[in-house]
Amino acid sequence: MKHHILPVSPSTVNWGYFSKVVAPALTLKSGDRATIETLTHHANDDHERMIEGDPGAESVFKWTREHKAIPRRGAGPTEGPFKLGSGEGVGVHLLTGPVAIEGAEPGDVLEVRILDVRPRPSCSACHAGRCFGSNVAASWGFHYHDLIEEPKPREVVTIFELDTSGEPFARAVYNYVWTPQTDPDGIVHSTIDYPGVKVDHSLIRKRENILQNVKVPARLHFGTMGLAPSESDYVSSIPPSYTGGNIDDWRIGKGARIYYPVAVDGAFFSVGDPHAAQGDSELGGTAIETSLTGDFEFILHKKNDLGGTILEGLTHPLLETDSQWSVYGFTFPNYLVELGVNAQTEVANHSSLDKAMRDAFRKLRRFLMTVHHLSEDEAISLLSVAADFGVTQVVDANWGVHGSIRKNVFVGR
Amino acid sequence: MKHHILPVSPSTVNWGYFSKVVAPALTLKSGDRATIETLTHHANDDHERMIEGDPGAESVFKWTREHKAIPRRGAGPTEGPFKLGSGEGVGVHLLTGPVAIEGAEPGDVLEVRILDVRPRPSCSACHAGRCFGSNVAASWGFHYHDLIEEPKPREVVTIFELDTSGEPFARAVYNYVWTPQTDPDGIVHSTIDYPGVKVDHSLIRKRENILQNVKVPARLHFGTMGLAPSESDYVSSIPPSYTGGNIDDWRIGKGARIYYPVAVDGAFFSVGDPHAAQGDSELGGTAIETSLTGDFEFILHKKNDLGGTILEGLTHPLLETDSQWSVYGFTFPNYLVELGVNAQTEVANHSSLDKAMRDAFRKLRRFLMTVHHLSEDEAISLLSVAADFGVTQVVDANWGVHGSIRKNVFVGR
Repeated sequence: MKHHILPVSPSTVNWGYFSKVVAPALTLKSGDRATIETLTHHANDDHERMIEGDPGAESVFKWTREHKAIPRRGAGPTEGPFKLGSGEGVGVHLLTGPVAIEGAEPGDVLEVRILDVRPRPSCSACHAGRCFGSNVAASWGFHYHDLIEEPKPREVVTIFELDTSGEPFARAVYNYVWTPQTDPDGIVHSTIDYPGVKVDHSLIRKRENILQNVKVPARLHFGTMGLAPSESDYVSSIPPSYTGGNIDDWRIGKGARIYYPVAVDGAFFSVGDPHAAQGDSELGGTAIETSLTGDFEFILHKKNDLGGTILEGLTHPLLETDSQWSVYGFTFPNYLVELGVNAQTEVANHSSLDKAMRDAFRKLRRFLMTVHHLSEDEAISLLSVAADFGVTQVVDANWGVHGSIRKNVFVGR
Repeated sequence: MKHHILPVSPSTVNWGYFSKVVAPALTLKSGDRATIETLTHHANDDHERMIEGDPGAESVFKWTREHKAIPRRGAGPTEGPFKLGSGEGVGVHLLTGPVAIEGAEPGDVLEVRILDVRPRPSCSACHAGRCFGSNVAASWGFHYHDLIEEPKPREVVTIFELDTSGEPFARAVYNYVWTPQTDPDGIVHSTIDYPGVKVDHSLIRKRENILQNVKVPARLHFGTMGLAPSESDYVSSIPPSYTGGNIDDWRIGKGARIYYPVAVDGAFFSVGDPHAAQGDSELGGTAIETSLTGDFEFILHKKNDLGGTILEGLTHPLLETDSQWSVYGFTFPNYLVELGVNAQTEVANHSSLDKAMRDAFRKLRRFLMTVHHLSEDEAISLLSVAADFGVTQVVDANWGVHGSIRKNVFVGR
């Protein structure tokens, strides 16, 4: 077993997509461990608190008229002229990786154990050692066209500070309404439509003393984590799918194991979209987006060894915690196949919890029948009386419902 | 404070509906307590285990060619000829009550505290003292038109036994596929389409040794509980609505407080549909349906006293437990008003989790803004990072999503 270190830098992150064709940032063997840094793509909502003085973050976010450290942000076109910018923001998450797993082949399953998760402290002179995050009530939020107060619509950024002195929690520091921001290439972003645009704080009005007497219990986790799909060279990081990705389940934190079907040689694991806290549904469009570092262990399960294990027949992500298993239903189990050539943009036009519930039901039934050897009638009964279905997210185009079954339902296994 | 006893009998239950026009089974004052027996309407799935020898249950379920103790079952017509039977099964739950609250008027809020919940032991000679329930994978289940194994479709009854010797749990005893059953009036029920039909066990094939090594942790609760709506004289017990009813949230158990807006003079509280365990979604159509007895306390909050309390502006059910508040979103917040004269049957044609999520969002936002004095921007942020939305049920026509916020989010309140 070897322990690897994967810091963030322009050469160890990709911005806004999973890809089977990019060079791996790290290659390791089954059984190896890695400490992996991740950055929130919302760090520039407060550059001073979340980027300034942090060599890794500064190197990734660097963008002047002369030099853009990471030009492609998203799975879209990289030849201009651009409406939004290179990659066109079709996919927005900073993802560290990919990590290639030696010997991984399509049909295998990669198990990823999250051994630890730690927030990334600020390096700026004024805030050194403290940890911050950004929550954005965004145009892709469930609430956006359903607002009460004026002005409508509006996007709102709320900056939180994380207190880790005891049981960790977050408190709001201030918020502001998004105002048009001009990027170094001269494109004006009237809404939050391209990641990594530095917010000019002289153009926004900070409101302090907000969410007074409110403490948000922390749920440190990675919103986006998974493998490269096989269907396209560049796949938007926004819609979750059969190889994982932007699942946005806060249970994917310390102590969790998650299993992904391998779709391409080397598996090509990436992780990012780190969150300090999120509720089931991620209603406004984001969590408390906070840079995190994780310790991971990777175990490759070869195709021919899956029979008779909990991974038999697995064609989608599966979460295991100390107390339960969860499957993830999506509007489309594999939107890349189901929606054709324009799938990556088209998927947002069909978001449906009803379909995600259908998919979650089918996946959990299969798990109970294949892995726990129940008849369909036994499985349906158990699903009714002991399985819990929740709203994972209503903001990632391919909406999600998770279905969970507690382990203590099964005696003596 | 007075403590009342309300046993089950043909004169203390209604079958399949809430009603503002029936005679109260009990009238009490705010602050009073009551021990209320409830019966599962599925007890005749195994008459021997759940009815035989139990005077209360026998009196309610009695149905021969000459005598049907409770003729009306549902909010439908009571003049034949019938397709299904009197009331036509438009509403199916046995509800004890109504309990009238002295002085309750529209605009008030009734708080119901569940002090204790106990299973009702079998009285039959062979099973005396043991507790049983029935889970039905029914025609109204989410799975019904999406089955894998033959024959398709099919309804399946699974009988569970509840073990209360320690931390309570349920184990399956046997199951059977529903076969056509003829009621004492000669109507053949090819599917489970009318409540209280006694299953002739000579016509079914019991399968034992099912769900071996599976223990279902108990979640004793009342699936259906609430007040009479004002819109109709007889309202089906199936779709939940603004005065509560068939919410089917397993959190409505011991220790819970639930608040209902009063729609008619006297409030007219009823409770039934007792459950031993249910998962979020109640996927197959029912829980483990088990007769239960509860101890309740009733507190009337008058309209003019609601301002400045958590009940200010409340127009829908609100749950409070030790750790959280929950609101209930439905496809239609008040389907009786929204769907017109055929609302009680029409509602099943429009079931939607997406709409229920919308309703749950709006209700929880209102709670945070009105009760916790947050701005809309503060509320949206908090909903994203700390509120959890789950699938309450996908089987009660007016599908439900609950939104919950933990109390410990609010410091020093």
